Amino acid sequence: MSHPLRHHIEEITPLSEAEFDYVLSHFTRKKVRKHQFLVEEGEPVPHEFFVVKGCLKAFNVDPEGKEHIIQFALEDWWISDYQAFFREVPATMLISSLEEGELLTISLANRNKLCAEMHKIEHFFRLKITSGFIAMQQRILAGMNLSVQERYEKLLTLYPNLSQRVPKQDIAAYLGVTRETLSRLRRV
Amino acid sequence: MSHPLRHHIEEITPLSEAEFDYVLSHFTRKKVRKHQFLVEEGEPVPHEFFVVKGCLKAFNVDPEGKEHIIQFALEDWWISDYQAFFREVPATMLISSLEEGELLTISLANRNKLCAEMHKIEHFFRLKITSGFIAMQQRILAGMNLSVQERYEKLLTLYPNLSQRVPKQDIAAYLGVTRETLSRLRRV
Repeated sequence: MSHPLRHHIEEITPLSEAEFDYVLSHFTRKKVRKHQFLVEEGEPVPHEFFVVKGCLKAFNVDPEGKEHIIQFALEDWWISDYQAFFREVPATMLISSLEEGELLTISLANRNKLCAEMHKIEHFFRLKITSGFIAMQQRILAGMNLSVQERYEKLLTLYPNLSQRVPKQDIAAYLGVTRETLSRLRRV
Repeated sequence: MSHPLRHHIEEITPLSEAEFDYVLSHFTRKKVRKHQFLVEEGEPVPHEFFVVKGCLKAFNVDPEGKEHIIQFALEDWWISDYQAFFREVPATMLISSLEEGELLTISLANRNKLCAEMHKIEHFFRLKITSGFIAMQQRILAGMNLSVQERYEKLLTLYPNLSQRVPKQDIAAYLGVTRETLSRLRRV
């Protein structure tokens, strides 16, 4: 079986063994504990994370202390505070791990280097961020137009098995509802 | 003075005269009238638009008939229903012109061709969509955390002069407030 990152990149573009080894040499393996913070508000964000195994959440806490979840990341997802990572400014969100897991981390310098040296890697990252952009735009549309029930169903389509892996309060914090409202939604 | 598209691309990567002429040959000029629709819900979206002159809005209409604005596009902005354009599925939003103006349109096939043939163009589009992704993520965060006043100020920073060019009801539809609420906000 090929490396999860290789399998993931090759969904978009084929890589030779040597090319993949070269790409992988720009990443660092990182074990994470349950509840470990990877990004903290106000701090620099030197890395983007690829989830080999585990489940992360990107969120922030409003002035009333209420948590709002922006994104979950399961296996084969990428996650970071992208404004902070790409613009090299302090984080405006937090990212923490919901499970023990394993990540690959890449620095902005190494990511830019790979994109400049390998056209196919720039292509890969262009398509990935395009998918992310579409997902964010759809999330804004959903917030404007869909009922909580419809947004719940969309979430479970986007992240199958999420409800088995994430506490109910985190699902509620993604949908922007209370746990009581969530418990009244139809299981799908 | 160089062509607005050349000037825009060269903010990211230099182009020779021949390269720019080649890039431009993949675009089509399009004049737009005030109130003209460029994307209609349920229809295919064969083009992305670059605004040479004018002001567009991407929006949708909820089941109660209320308009919600996802994005404005002024000079040097790109706009489309990106899910529909990239995935070749029917539009889930509408795009219309708020002013008489001039656009450059590009098809998905021509955009992919330019990206495949010219690494620097793939780089340019990767950075552009990355900025779009960051803007969308920040818009979601703003919706979760900021007051209407703060979101209004953020909007006017993102699009200077917008309030001189766009009807008040469109600003209200972007912020998700009534015109009465908008009129109570502090001018900035």
